[in-house]
Amino acid sequence: MTIESASRKLVKEFRSRRTLRTGSLITTVFGDSIAARGGTVWLGSLINLMSDFGIGERLVRTSVFRLVQDGWLQSSQIGRRSYYSLTDEGCERIAHATSKIYAEPTSDWDERWCLVLLAGLDASQKELVRKELGWLGFAALSSNMLAHPTPDEAALDAALRRLGSDELIIISGKTVRNALAMRNLAQDSWNLAEIDAAYAGFIKRFSPLITAYGKDANVLPKSAFMVRTLLIQEYRKVLLRDPLLPSELLPESWSGSAAYRLCRNLYRAVHAPADAYLSDILETVDGPLPPVSGEFMQRFGCLD
Amino acid sequence: MTIESASRKLVKEFRSRRTLRTGSLITTVFGDSIAARGGTVWLGSLINLMSDFGIGERLVRTSVFRLVQDGWLQSSQIGRRSYYSLTDEGCERIAHATSKIYAEPTSDWDERWCLVLLAGLDASQKELVRKELGWLGFAALSSNMLAHPTPDEAALDAALRRLGSDELIIISGKTVRNALAMRNLAQDSWNLAEIDAAYAGFIKRFSPLITAYGKDANVLPKSAFMVRTLLIQEYRKVLLRDPLLPSELLPESWSGSAAYRLCRNLYRAVHAPADAYLSDILETVDGPLPPVSGEFMQRFGCLD
Repeated sequence: MTIESASRKLVKEFRSRRTLRTGSLITTVFGDSIAARGGTVWLGSLINLMSDFGIGERLVRTSVFRLVQDGWLQSSQIGRRSYYSLTDEGCERIAHATSKIYAEPTSDWDERWCLVLLAGLDASQKELVRKELGWLGFAALSSNMLAHPTPDEAALDAALRRLGSDELIIISGKTVRNALAMRNLAQDSWNLAEIDAAYAGFIKRFSPLITAYGKDANVLPKSAFMVRTLLIQEYRKVLLRDPLLPSELLPESWSGSAAYRLCRNLYRAVHAPADAYLSDILETVDGPLPPVSGEFMQRFGCLD
Repeated sequence: MTIESASRKLVKEFRSRRTLRTGSLITTVFGDSIAARGGTVWLGSLINLMSDFGIGERLVRTSVFRLVQDGWLQSSQIGRRSYYSLTDEGCERIAHATSKIYAEPTSDWDERWCLVLLAGLDASQKELVRKELGWLGFAALSSNMLAHPTPDEAALDAALRRLGSDELIIISGKTVRNALAMRNLAQDSWNLAEIDAAYAGFIKRFSPLITAYGKDANVLPKSAFMVRTLLIQEYRKVLLRDPLLPSELLPESWSGSAAYRLCRNLYRAVHAPADAYLSDILETVDGPLPPVSGEFMQRFGCLD
């Protein structure tokens, strides 16, 4: 199979899905492509771009309108044209997701656990904390305790500020015996099997593309853009649910590492022709998009 | 009131109690007096000694028999006389209690908490751990977590060996925020009010003696022995229930510190004449008891 036919198959499968989340895909295009190239786009050119995925003008307009309502995007009218850019809040959300999605898996765990004690909270506060810290990958080891080995400190700080509870107790500590029992307890508390299966599904979907690319690196700019976008769309869906545990706490057969390598390698293969395609198709008020930011090249370790 | 009349009043009050725990009092005499002076005594002389408290020969014999059954004492027959000494296990128990009872309160807490997670245990195991570690002053912060700021490490090790559970997780850690909430949670988890009230009762009972001693230091050897014994008997009843929290975690009005100072001062006043009395009354197979051990003089900081 050539990379062209593999990408056609990928897009076809994507278009055949019953629930096509256009808003989510546009968020991926903004987060993966547009944010690194100025962050603003003329709606007409975005409509052109999304038509590649079989998404019609009307659906793009509705989705963009919703993304404005949800605080992701803002619009400005210049002449007869509408331009959309990320809001400050949208930029922050993207930056936070970006710091995870394109990051190399770390393995420098100091064996310390971050424990969150909920004992002093009432039932509704507990529920709120469980939900908020659940987004950060914390698992409930028991009804009154959440834990994570390597929490995202900045995100935790922000979440705790939002929660604003004076009764919430955070303890940083190490096991002094039965480290293994703690690992087992923790592993049982996360839904690792489900996430592992999602990574395996991701690998299954994208491995034909990397195989095809290995045989013939000639990929058309348009296909490169579509592959890159669907790659990040699918990868981030799993990754942002992943508690990102240190490797010491993962099962031997964990698919996350293989999924990371596949995603990185395919991204390295397609990002440049994809950006060439974006330069052709997307427009700002000043003409084509500016070149990619310096930070962009640091994705997945390094894109060079 | 003279110290003689104050001691008579003390002993009278003790003798009037409905439940006179002879075994417990004999344990105090062994732990406080005999252990530091060779550890062996002729039963006949012990019967003489206990008669001061209004305890008859028969009750002493029954109690001593029970203490043998409970592993505290062992007997040896030499001629027509029975000698009782502490077993190895009895010595260990006494040594453990001694290390607490006569110790100066420490205040060198490093702000670290010892947390014991029970999440992996079944209900009956949890109950067992809660009970065992309850003896060591651990409090349940929630249904699946016990905590102590400054556990007795050796006793904890021994308890964990006895419990032998591979699922029991011990974490040593510090609060990284809301240290106050942790303190409040912990304080609410111990029954400090009850222990504080017991210390206050102890102070009320023994302050007339220290006041009387302040006016006239002339105390008869026999009274000195009875005061010393009842002093330790009553003090240890409270102290061994006390989780011995660092001062940072105690309420401002905590009676434990005043109780300690009172106990130490009165002990310093009466220990020497009491030992003179023991030299007169108690007998070993070689005659009178040997002199007190060097360690003895280190009680309550220092007895000199």
